[in-house]
Amino acid sequence: MKIRLATDADRDAIWSIFHDVVTGGDTYALDPNISREDALAYWFAAGTRTYVAEKGVAGDGLAVPGKPTASPAIVRARHILGTYILRPNQSGGGSHVANAGFMVSASARGQGIGRAMAEHCLHEARRLGFRAMQFNYVISTNTAAIRLWQDLGFEIVGTLAGAFRHPKKGYVDVYVMYRSL
Amino acid sequence: MKIRLATDADRDAIWSIFHDVVTGGDTYALDPNISREDALAYWFAAGTRTYVAEKGVAGDGLAVPGKPTASPAIVRARHILGTYILRPNQSGGGSHVANAGFMVSASARGQGIGRAMAEHCLHEARRLGFRAMQFNYVISTNTAAIRLWQDLGFEIVGTLAGAFRHPKKGYVDVYVMYRSL
Repeated sequence: MKIRLATDADRDAIWSIFHDVVTGGDTYALDPNISREDALAYWFAAGTRTYVAEKGVAGDGLAVPGKPTASPAIVRARHILGTYILRPNQSGGGSHVANAGFMVSASARGQGIGRAMAEHCLHEARRLGFRAMQFNYVISTNTAAIRLWQDLGFEIVGTLAGAFRHPKKGYVDVYVMYRSL
Repeated sequence: MKIRLATDADRDAIWSIFHDVVTGGDTYALDPNISREDALAYWFAAGTRTYVAEKGVAGDGLAVPGKPTASPAIVRARHILGTYILRPNQSGGGSHVANAGFMVSASARGQGIGRAMAEHCLHEARRLGFRAMQFNYVISTNTAAIRLWQDLGFEIVGTLAGAFRHPKKGYVDVYVMYRSL
């Protein structure tokens, strides 16, 4: 797997992952009906660095005599396993603290893609000179994410009581998580 | 004093207050060199309600025989004592929690303008159906604001270690403050 900066050619794959994640509606405080345009404007905003985790190129991308070749767009979409963004959490006197967001393709969960992207992200944040990283909105029912962030050195530094309306569980707490770099 | 929704005619006065506040650089994580255009785009963003606190109309606005009359723009600017914004802190499942930001004209500080706007804001937030209010970024050295928010029922629910680079004091903590409505 390779993690690299996203290009315009990745937009279809990113929208596909983004749409799946927000339609689930239980991990991000984003409108489940957000348009493709608004989603990509958010994920590729000015000042935001956008990355993708890409599966090593082999398999369906190869033209084999007698085998129907998938379109390049479909092949690319199949190969993007996840995406993340890295940006300053605030401007001015707060710009030394990074913020990041991660999304993994539904078909690629449970394979360590999130962890690999998070480790890459921490490395990138240090390289870019950030002194800390903050997650503003970790929903308390998202236990897999919380375990991963804690394992990577993040602490719960704040609790927002009932700040998220979970589609099945009603109002649940949200955590602010933070670590120095 | 009257607190009301801002109109386009208030933009000069708001920019004047905004510019003073961010140039100080010790209460907001905003670029002290932010342009007027970017500042007003932020303060009047889609989904944001923008209010002003206006001094009762009397005094310089009146035309008195023999007295030079100030231009309408200057009179208006003099009368705007402060401004605040109210908006959802998040989208989707987080949109029942409000966020707000307050700025008071340097010449009008210490007169209870901030408190009056905050009380108005809490009332507006309840009226609009918000269930809680969150301040994401209260700089720990801004003791007057912290005392006011605590007096109005907000609690410190999170501490971000060294998250703000104060222009004089170096890296200082930042608080997340929250209250239900």
